[in-house]
Amino acid sequence: MRMYDIIDQKKRGNELTKEEIYYAINGYVLGDIPDYQMSALLMAIYYKGMTDEELLYMTECMAKSGDMADLSNIDGIKVDKHSTGGVGDKTTLAVAPIVAACGGKVAKMSGRGLGFTGGTVDKLESIPYMQTAIDEKRFFEIVNKLGISLIGQSANIAPADKKLYALRDVTATVDSIPLIAASIMSKKLAAGSDKIVLDVTVGSGAFMKSIEDAVILAEKMVAIGEGAGRETIAILTNMDVPLGISVGNNIEIIEAIEALQGKAPKDFQEICEVFATTMLVLGKRGTEKECYALVKKVIEDGSALDKFAAVVKEQGGDESYIYHPDQFPRALYEKEFKAKQTGYIVSMDAEICGKTAVILGAGRETKESTIDDTAGIRFFKKTGSWVEEGEKIAVLYSSDQKKLEDAASYLEKAYIFGSEKPEKLKAIYAKVYKDGVTYL
Amino acid sequence: MRMYDIIDQKKRGNELTKEEIYYAINGYVLGDIPDYQMSALLMAIYYKGMTDEELLYMTECMAKSGDMADLSNIDGIKVDKHSTGGVGDKTTLAVAPIVAACGGKVAKMSGRGLGFTGGTVDKLESIPYMQTAIDEKRFFEIVNKLGISLIGQSANIAPADKKLYALRDVTATVDSIPLIAASIMSKKLAAGSDKIVLDVTVGSGAFMKSIEDAVILAEKMVAIGEGAGRETIAILTNMDVPLGISVGNNIEIIEAIEALQGKAPKDFQEICEVFATTMLVLGKRGTEKECYALVKKVIEDGSALDKFAAVVKEQGGDESYIYHPDQFPRALYEKEFKAKQTGYIVSMDAEICGKTAVILGAGRETKESTIDDTAGIRFFKKTGSWVEEGEKIAVLYSSDQKKLEDAASYLEKAYIFGSEKPEKLKAIYAKVYKDGVTYL
Repeated sequence: MRMYDIIDQKKRGNELTKEEIYYAINGYVLGDIPDYQMSALLMAIYYKGMTDEELLYMTECMAKSGDMADLSNIDGIKVDKHSTGGVGDKTTLAVAPIVAACGGKVAKMSGRGLGFTGGTVDKLESIPYMQTAIDEKRFFEIVNKLGISLIGQSANIAPADKKLYALRDVTATVDSIPLIAASIMSKKLAAGSDKIVLDVTVGSGAFMKSIEDAVILAEKMVAIGEGAGRETIAILTNMDVPLGISVGNNIEIIEAIEALQGKAPKDFQEICEVFATTMLVLGKRGTEKECYALVKKVIEDGSALDKFAAVVKEQGGDESYIYHPDQFPRALYEKEFKAKQTGYIVSMDAEICGKTAVILGAGRETKESTIDDTAGIRFFKKTGSWVEEGEKIAVLYSSDQKKLEDAASYLEKAYIFGSEKPEKLKAIYAKVYKDGVTYL
Repeated sequence: MRMYDIIDQKKRGNELTKEEIYYAINGYVLGDIPDYQMSALLMAIYYKGMTDEELLYMTECMAKSGDMADLSNIDGIKVDKHSTGGVGDKTTLAVAPIVAACGGKVAKMSGRGLGFTGGTVDKLESIPYMQTAIDEKRFFEIVNKLGISLIGQSANIAPADKKLYALRDVTATVDSIPLIAASIMSKKLAAGSDKIVLDVTVGSGAFMKSIEDAVILAEKMVAIGEGAGRETIAILTNMDVPLGISVGNNIEIIEAIEALQGKAPKDFQEICEVFATTMLVLGKRGTEKECYALVKKVIEDGSALDKFAAVVKEQGGDESYIYHPDQFPRALYEKEFKAKQTGYIVSMDAEICGKTAVILGAGRETKESTIDDTAGIRFFKKTGSWVEEGEKIAVLYSSDQKKLEDAASYLEKAYIFGSEKPEKLKAIYAKVYKDGVTYL
């Protein structure tokens, strides 16, 4: 077998065999196949795509290139949840405790933030003393005890994906839907859960800018998950505006706590409840209606919040912050952000909002950057709101006063004002199952 | 400027600027841009193509990456001739002396053979004592004295092309028409002639398998030549069968000598006369009719043959071989190749014929291989001939008896016999000018 022929086949639009795909991926990870051949193959895939079979083989091979978590020591059906990335996306922080409070099992391994989207691990670490670097044995113990543990993912998860992603990042082959699907799902397959719920974000703050593209990505990922024997459902969510009102680290923890109490902003609350319900249905906790009622109950009776406090405590964190979030340190400096003109907010670019948060210190410019737990933005008025010129529509937070000015002038670019009220944004667009798409 | 953005632009099908193209090519030659980015760009070009402007910039940049021959010390209009490669293609060996005998100037730098097509320099060196490694000063002297010199091309001609070609060869990006055009024309621009006649071969023994593709390649090359200020004409010739009857080194020299005397096989004789006429018209030696008459005259009166003998002598060779080609050594071993069945030869795959000659020792399997000057094949019957089973249709020559059997069994695959007479093959399909295509 020769890599040349594999490139040539894909270039002509022919389907690759399992053996060819394994030869290419494994050879690349081992260093037997050079970057320049892999980048040619990736560009050919960009144009010619991959069939569901090709994609399954590629994804499984990538997953197997590193540690494959074996969750069989955890009782019950383990349901994983993954988001393709968003601004203000703290969904996991609320959904996981809700599901666990309802009797589901959530053995969740999350990543850190890079670029304009935050990371669940970074947010968790803004809770004093909270540990996320936990070994496998202890992780299983915690999940068996509480139904939930939230840890950082293994450094050796899908190393093939790391190496391929680094190459795609410098060869303009990141924006290929099959390659995105393989990248995400290789890590999900390696993470070992029995079933998977995917949050596929759509809009200005997401990688997928259109619902059409998001559906294609979702279908590819569902096909991979199902092909690998993991029941998988994808939910398309709106990322044209930041989710909820808070973008940052400890302020997003505070908003997640609100969702656990049913008090979060409407869009975020809805998404939390839908994802928790879907995970519970997959975990065979009842019908959709029953599971939704269960979700509502654990929010109302405080057991969802208690579950979060319990896992924080179990992982070394100070759970008093969960019950008294006013203890979280506030940023040293803050700045009001005012509307430039009177009118409706017609749109606000979520990617710009996310990058503004990074400028303030909430995210990483490079892998080496440190995170300012208190930095971020709260948006009091979002798309669709009528605002008066000079009205406070957001507040910026940072430990570095100088960053506030830069951030504020950058954020200006996010807004478009107008006299016509824009159409109301949906929080959830569609659900993608193995058998088809349901638009909501 | 970033290579990433250049790849991304081309990937989306946008036109690159001159600055972007120079940045990419020069950066690659210098080693500042890695192979993996260039291979991604090449694959994007494979799918998205290049405009005439992009192609001109790329080709000029590639030409300027090495030595640019300055032929201004040679009087008159220098007309170059180049073939995209064929089996039994000894055209330059006859055309150059004919043109020089008519008063044209031919300062010809040629390459060696690699793969299944032979090289003019290898063939010339089968003439005893003939030198082709000649320095520039002496080259100019010879052209000024005789109107012709035939030498090997500089090792430092278009190094960007060498580096790019080596990368294309391992990343399945060789078969891109714009990249083929840039590769060929970069060397032609560097070779310094005022005008260029291109022999674009079409068929089973050529890189272009269809007339349609060959026309596109010809148009691209003509556009590059004209864009660079060199009047350029391309002639599409038939390479569905080997040209003439001889494929090898000294046996091709013998056939070229026949063409200089008007006694070559009809297809090869016609091509020699058409190319010589076209070169003379470009060199302003008269109208097409006048130039054709001139060509016929120098063949008939022996001055074309004398010109070849003169340049051989001037370059150290033994010109007595030109007048008495029976002196050329014959191969130590030969083997008759017989028709497997009675019928018409419906087709003979010219690439297989060329590879058979390589097996016999006439070409190089690798860059390090040595050439057997006497090895090769003579085809007594070609496509369209009626043959009887067991009739001798070719003879194989080699200095290595063992190779004859391998070669003969390989050659079997080249032939298809049938009961219906195939359509008569044209030697020349079309001429491609700046302003359009004339089909013949």
